Amino acid sequence: MVAEHVTVNEVGPRDGLQSQTRTLDGDGRLAMIRALVEAGLHSIEAGSFVSPKAVPQMAGTGELFARLPGRDEVRYSALVPNARGYELARGAGVGTVSVVLSATETMNRRNINMGLDETTAACAELMARAAADGIEGWAYLAVAYECPFEGPTPPAQVERLAARMLGAGARKLIIADTIGAANPAQVRHLIGNLVRADGARHVACHFHDTRGMALANVLAALEEGVRDFDSSIGGLGGCPFSPGASGNVATEDVVLMLESMGLRTGIDLDALVAAVERVSELLESPLGGHAFRWLRRRAGQAKGGAHV
Amino acid sequence: MVAEHVTVNEVGPRDGLQSQTRTLDGDGRLAMIRALVEAGLHSIEAGSFVSPKAVPQMAGTGELFARLPGRDEVRYSALVPNARGYELARGAGVGTVSVVLSATETMNRRNINMGLDETTAACAELMARAAADGIEGWAYLAVAYECPFEGPTPPAQVERLAARMLGAGARKLIIADTIGAANPAQVRHLIGNLVRADGARHVACHFHDTRGMALANVLAALEEGVRDFDSSIGGLGGCPFSPGASGNVATEDVVLMLESMGLRTGIDLDALVAAVERVSELLESPLGGHAFRWLRRRAGQAKGGAHV
Repeated sequence: MVAEHVTVNEVGPRDGLQSQTRTLDGDGRLAMIRALVEAGLHSIEAGSFVSPKAVPQMAGTGELFARLPGRDEVRYSALVPNARGYELARGAGVGTVSVVLSATETMNRRNINMGLDETTAACAELMARAAADGIEGWAYLAVAYECPFEGPTPPAQVERLAARMLGAGARKLIIADTIGAANPAQVRHLIGNLVRADGARHVACHFHDTRGMALANVLAALEEGVRDFDSSIGGLGGCPFSPGASGNVATEDVVLMLESMGLRTGIDLDALVAAVERVSELLESPLGGHAFRWLRRRAGQAKGGAHV
Repeated sequence: MVAEHVTVNEVGPRDGLQSQTRTLDGDGRLAMIRALVEAGLHSIEAGSFVSPKAVPQMAGTGELFARLPGRDEVRYSALVPNARGYELARGAGVGTVSVVLSATETMNRRNINMGLDETTAACAELMARAAADGIEGWAYLAVAYECPFEGPTPPAQVERLAARMLGAGARKLIIADTIGAANPAQVRHLIGNLVRADGARHVACHFHDTRGMALANVLAALEEGVRDFDSSIGGLGGCPFSPGASGNVATEDVVLMLESMGLRTGIDLDALVAAVERVSELLESPLGGHAFRWLRRRAGQAKGGAHV
């Protein structure tokens, strides 16, 4: 029996880095991405085309794309916040762009000073333009479970926006638990509905570990048929001074669970440990998900030939 | 609709403390247990009747039992390694005793210098004696998924031992992932079989978080019908210098997930935060599961009346 493949989409170089107080230069970002590619990550969110004044961590993403390794085998994506960002991405030869549509009125207003309808229309326009340009478009649906301003997000609202994005030309919906508030029962409900309505191949999940439930939520989504998960190397994201506390679910935790369960990610766990260590060096901040300590010990034993 | 109840059996005062280099005296252990009871934990493994030379952390368990608070509403259990321990427990008025039966030949030999058949017979004898004495008997089945010496444990072996213990008079089987090696697919397989064969009311689960999968494993067991989980306050257990790294699944993580999913544990999350802090003080070592930071912030906000 051939093991089923699961895509792990690494978001450390964008979602992870943009929340860090320490900014990596182009060489640093490239070194990080090289370590990820060497570990077998073949789907990587490499950066975003946002104003360098607003997000200095992402300055120079166009130049970075020109230097990315293994572009034939690795799918690199970039986040585009608006039409200007989209044009910059297109000019830089980016093959996959993503937009962020928050699922509530207030979150959109607070984030980008536009209402939900207006943001939805703008995102739909970008997805349509990408499809016309032969660029793959992905739509993040943010605060899909709970909004810090409006509380629990009605699943029907997320389902409506999902259908709208797919109709506009999006190839993938990434359902994001932006504040790490989801529980596995909610995940089963919302993701189950989306998989039935839109097909598992169009649905991916993005979890944060704020309440410690990220990996359980991955399991719930997996059992609803999802085979595509965002994660961040070492749990990078959130506050840099509390690794793992409120960051993204760690890539090594997701890969270890999937591979242990007999699924196939194409990612090498020992090389992933090396990637966590490389990124920790670059950021001068210790990183690592819940399984990292065990994985590092295992990798060391494999190298040294020691017995368990 | 009345929410379904799930039992959370706190093992910090025994499984947690016995691995600590710092030994609490009777007053310290009692202070710990008081904090747990105040948080609403009504099932607590309070100690073990082992040789104080072998396990000094558990010396004086008989005296401790005489001082335990709320014995009408709290089910206190004690681990008994052999007939001598059982008699000491009975003499101390212990109402629930547990035995540990490792599911592999080598683990029993290494641990207690007895083979699997001999250990099985000894545990069955203790379960029968407890039943005859009107004491509730619980059987831990250790290394139920993987043994550090023999590798993966055949599920059929665990199922056979489970049936044997229930036949001998055990009221509850506690299926233990002693080295934290289980993944959710294995859990669903083994626990599903046990629930079908023996009934969910006789099956409990005990997970360690060595590979970061403990909470996902709790979810898998929950979905197979289990409504009884061991956990340890703050993730206590394993190495005291790497909190959470290889310890038991943290009580606060389990309770938060269950309550978030709409199940009822009877445990107060804010009081649980206070219990984690109390035990951290007693052991002079910072504790806390994956959700602790978020729970503590939430508890602080509730107290101070601050808005999220």
